[in-house]
Amino acid sequence: MTASENPAAAESSTTRLEAFSDGVFAIAITLLVLEIRLPDSHQIEALGGLGRTLLGLWPSYLGYVVSFVVAGIMWANHHNVIRLVARVDHGLMVWNLLLLMAISFTPFPTAVMAEHLPHAGWDRNVAVAFYCGSFTLTAFFYNLMWRHVARNRHLLRPHVSGAQVDAITRAYRPGTFIYGFATAVAFANVVAALAIVFGLALFFILPRRGAHTTA
Amino acid sequence: MTASENPAAAESSTTRLEAFSDGVFAIAITLLVLEIRLPDSHQIEALGGLGRTLLGLWPSYLGYVVSFVVAGIMWANHHNVIRLVARVDHGLMVWNLLLLMAISFTPFPTAVMAEHLPHAGWDRNVAVAFYCGSFTLTAFFYNLMWRHVARNRHLLRPHVSGAQVDAITRAYRPGTFIYGFATAVAFANVVAALAIVFGLALFFILPRRGAHTTA
Amino acid sequence: MTASENPAAAESSTTRLEAFSDGVFAIAITLLVLEIRLPDSHQIEALGGLGRTLLGLWPSYLGYVVSFVVAGIMWANHHNVIRLVARVDHGLMVWNLLLLMAISFTPFPTAVMAEHLPHAGWDRNVAVAFYCGSFTLTAFFYNLMWRHVARNRHLLRPHVSGAQVDAITRAYRPGTFIYGFATAVAFANVVAALAIVFGLALFFILPRRGAHTTA
Amino acid sequence: MTASENPAAAESSTTRLEAFSDGVFAIAITLLVLEIRLPDSHQIEALGGLGRTLLGLWPSYLGYVVSFVVAGIMWANHHNVIRLVARVDHGLMVWNLLLLMAISFTPFPTAVMAEHLPHAGWDRNVAVAFYCGSFTLTAFFYNLMWRHVARNRHLLRPHVSGAQVDAITRAYRPGTFIYGFATAVAFANVVAALAIVFGLALFFILPRRGAHTTA
Repeated sequence: MTASENPAAAESSTTRLEAFSDGVFAIAITLLVLEIRLPDSHQIEALGGLGRTLLGLWPSYLGYVVSFVVAGIMWANHHNVIRLVARVDHGLMVWNLLLLMAISFTPFPTAVMAEHLPHAGWDRNVAVAFYCGSFTLTAFFYNLMWRHVARNRHLLRPHVSGAQVDAITRAYRPGTFIYGFATAVAFANVVAALAIVFGLALFFILPRRGAHTTA
Repeated sequence: MTASENPAAAESSTTRLEAFSDGVFAIAITLLVLEIRLPDSHQIEALGGLGRTLLGLWPSYLGYVVSFVVAGIMWANHHNVIRLVARVDHGLMVWNLLLLMAISFTPFPTAVMAEHLPHAGWDRNVAVAFYCGSFTLTAFFYNLMWRHVARNRHLLRPHVSGAQVDAITRAYRPGTFIYGFATAVAFANVVAALAIVFGLALFFILPRRGAHTTA
Repeated sequence: MTASENPAAAESSTTRLEAFSDGVFAIAITLLVLEIRLPDSHQIEALGGLGRTLLGLWPSYLGYVVSFVVAGIMWANHHNVIRLVARVDHGLMVWNLLLLMAISFTPFPTAVMAEHLPHAGWDRNVAVAFYCGSFTLTAFFYNLMWRHVARNRHLLRPHVSGAQVDAITRAYRPGTFIYGFATAVAFANVVAALAIVFGLALFFILPRRGAHTTA
Repeated sequence: MTASENPAAAESSTTRLEAFSDGVFAIAITLLVLEIRLPDSHQIEALGGLGRTLLGLWPSYLGYVVSFVVAGIMWANHHNVIRLVARVDHGLMVWNLLLLMAISFTPFPTAVMAEHLPHAGWDRNVAVAFYCGSFTLTAFFYNLMWRHVARNRHLLRPHVSGAQVDAITRAYRPGTFIYGFATAVAFANVVAALAIVFGLALFFILPRRGAHTTA
């Protein structure tokens, strides 16, 4: 009944792990829009009409775009790792579940950040740190999942070389530290912290040559 | 580790890009219903009972139907493009992500439009322009994604001819302009703007001969 | 670029139509839980504690279970139809989209019904009629989708016989009428209307011999 | 038209049952985050700022993590069962639907539990019992689904031995009783009840040798 007993079953395991993970990524990313809420009609009037109100929601749009792109990067990376994997063991299933748990959490810190971004003060620092902190946790679980695969090479497809594994390990390692650094920076300077997260996202979006491996 | 190194992996890339995109389309389209909200019991009484209240929600039903059909068209078109694609490169992944970001946003402008449609005034114009504007953005990203594929023909399946590519380019181009025109019209005449969006949706729904290629 | 040009592409069309439809069914069914809402702490106290409050939510649980089972039946039937289909044309895509639009709408009438079920009066009749009416619409679109397939037999797999097609047509036809009848009954007697919808759901759930074809 | 008539169709049935179930699991697990809600700005001020407010949401995080892991275990088990299944009959479809109905319900008891955990009193006991009770129901339906498969061995793949079937039956049986015991314990001691649910989740998460079969 273990994955290793039956190669066909193991293959099918990868397929369902992918399908399940794709589902969670797709839903988490799509739920982000539910956190953008229009103020009620009295507030819209007080804010000077719908046009100004919609413009005033820029922190929500910003949070939506950044979280969407970051989660999209995570999805692309997840995808790049899993297609190197030939079989799923218990550890990979557990690490994957913890990674998905961090990804699914994203809409909450995004909403917290968007709500506090327009109002100067300590709470804004806390909100941005909470936001960056949730990406740090995601990147951390991402690295732990990859480490598990890298240490159990029988899980990998035969064509994957040791050099490829090491290249991925090197490429993913900085993610946790960069997001962690942004989290610390957020307590001192909100704009600088968000600029770091933006920078990482832009770095991914810009055209490039070579592997797409940013954590 | 790039998609081009391993043809089997590239194939599998298309599969997961499709699965992920299908998930996002399906969720965005299904979340639309969460934006239809029944007024509370006091308001229902003030409106003259549940029957009248449910009838009075017609702008929400209208928004639901139009957004569902428009997003459904986008899905069908996405589907028609991706099945011509043999391999996914970094650019296609990024453009696809930006397209999905625009699609996932749909429930918010739909709710904004539905809420303001019954009340005459400038805010109604703004709401409908915001609604049409979000479709313009979606059609725009859609075209950019297709342009990327059309310019990188090694991404296409071998059986796809240059004539087919040009036919799709021509078929998709008007979408952005028509939605953009509807957005501009919305500032002058709300009914005319919605009629344009309706017209495009009906044009798709009606039976036809030939390719299903409307952006 | 039409589905009929390339058999492999047509096959893949069915796959994505299934994947997209499965996604919409799965999400619509899962969103039902979001319509079950706990009263706030003051109301819980007024209702005599959490235990009584949770018991008092029985109309929400009832709506959840019935809608889940009905949507589950629709999914199983959708599945039974699509696996007879070899190729997807424009009409099937459009009818399928309209069916999904009706399915996705389910959480709203379910919430309306659950909210009004405990309070006697005309609004309760309206709420249950709205609920049954939404199933009528779903069954109606379901039949239209099947009719399209039945009339365009080149869409069906070669092994499907005319007798099978006629058997399915006969099996699906009553659905719309039974739900429509329940809708009419709801204006006179709420319990009788729900009993009809329950009966249909139970009829599906109970063990049987032969084809699973209830609309 | 029954699944047994056509082996290829039966195979495809399993594929769609998996896809649909994966979708429901993925969505139920992802919707959990929507139940975590930030108090409004007045309450945040009263609670001593955003930092304290976010820390004070620990019962929501706890509920999120536990429900995510429990639902993740259920998904992994579902996956382990379905890959032994070769064909889907009416009974399996119905039991699977009832299992999914219980899984999809999870966000509601999770929210109820999280809301009442910080406040000592009988309502807290009721809330935790409701939470554990929902897992009991899920484990119960899970066992009924497996029993149906175990009693109809023609549904299983040919390579599955009677010893494997019995091992799975033994492995799954305790789940319902342990969750049921936690439900009863919740009325006397909330911490002990949650410790049992935690223990089961941790037992799954910890590395192990052998089959991953915990209900």
